[in-house]
Amino acid sequence: MKWHKSTLEIPTRGKGLYSFSGHVNAQLRVWQVQQGMCFLFCPHTSASLTINENYDPSAQADLEKSLDKFVPENAGWYTHDLEGPDDATSHIRAMLTDSGLSIPVDDGNLSLGTWQGVYLFEHRARVQRRQVLVRVLDLSE
Amino acid sequence: MKWHKSTLEIPTRGKGLYSFSGHVNAQLRVWQVQQGMCFLFCPHTSASLTINENYDPSAQADLEKSLDKFVPENAGWYTHDLEGPDDATSHIRAMLTDSGLSIPVDDGNLSLGTWQGVYLFEHRARVQRRQVLVRVLDLSE
Amino acid sequence: MKWHKSTLEIPTRGKGLYSFSGHVNAQLRVWQVQQGMCFLFCPHTSASLTINENYDPSAQADLEKSLDKFVPENAGWYTHDLEGPDDATSHIRAMLTDSGLSIPVDDGNLSLGTWQGVYLFEHRARVQRRQVLVRVLDLSE
Repeated sequence: MKWHKSTLEIPTRGKGLYSFSGHVNAQLRVWQVQQGMCFLFCPHTSASLTINENYDPSAQADLEKSLDKFVPENAGWYTHDLEGPDDATSHIRAMLTDSGLSIPVDDGNLSLGTWQGVYLFEHRARVQRRQVLVRVLDLSE
Repeated sequence: MKWHKSTLEIPTRGKGLYSFSGHVNAQLRVWQVQQGMCFLFCPHTSASLTINENYDPSAQADLEKSLDKFVPENAGWYTHDLEGPDDATSHIRAMLTDSGLSIPVDDGNLSLGTWQGVYLFEHRARVQRRQVLVRVLDLSE
Repeated sequence: MKWHKSTLEIPTRGKGLYSFSGHVNAQLRVWQVQQGMCFLFCPHTSASLTINENYDPSAQADLEKSLDKFVPENAGWYTHDLEGPDDATSHIRAMLTDSGLSIPVDDGNLSLGTWQGVYLFEHRARVQRRQVLVRVLDLSE
């Protein structure tokens, strides 16, 4: 049993979904993990994680638009707006999605379904440099 | 320390909550796990997982209805509708609930609260055959 | 490798966010955990967990208010109301947030971002005594 640690850097250019499944699988190959559990953690309060459809860009567009609909910037009742109209909304959108993901690893890869991708969900409008903590419990035989 | 793996098959007959806590506990007994962590992962983008009230069917009905209210099929702005009116809505509903659950195991069972049950949340209207990956880190003494 | 277990008791005095990051870090010090994974689990169906902004109280106020907006008590369509107007809404609010959190531990503390705090989200109006199950996979070298 081994414990692997690294931090992914993900640059973002405005709101939206940024896929990083490939980066995690590449890291698993470097570590030569065959099976175990992969824990991903987003140490930000205005960006989050989610797993969803990785094939058709229209699905991702609808996911992004859904948060604009649920948590609109012009709702008028936010009090936490020091950093702009995407301040309170970013925290609320982060709460409705995931701060962390726990994904099984088998045969050297994340055991995602055929249509699943792992995404960083950026909720801020301006350019950011985000981190994702990657932890792997390596139970290769 | 041991690592146990299996895949549950859960047939669904339309949208709604399908309890499977009992199936997981039965599998824990087969593996003779006394304590540890159980990781459940749903490898689908139009079904998801959630933990919620297991006693009164009216609570489950309200949970199902709440997603119909938040993410209505007739909202009119979805672009991802190749597979029908429940296509984009399924992915959005999956995003708002859970792709994975991490539950402690104690005394041979999931350490759920008295009123908690583990559910697959089916978001598609037609009959499906869903999978849930079950992984258990067995830390029995 | 060690496995640590405890249960935190968190008294609540009505709806809202109750920070408990400090309690978890104090427990990590008692166990002398240097690195590993911390799993937090909420065994209730009308309270939940979330990670979010820990600095400006206005951010927390907006998070609380957002659930009042999404899941209003006077929506009129809830059928599960035996325990009052905050009955169905509590379960729905729990579903939209988290039943469990998985957080890396490094250098003896939860590896939270600078602005992140761990919160119990109480969805019931009356005074409660809540529990959070704390499990730590201790991988200190």
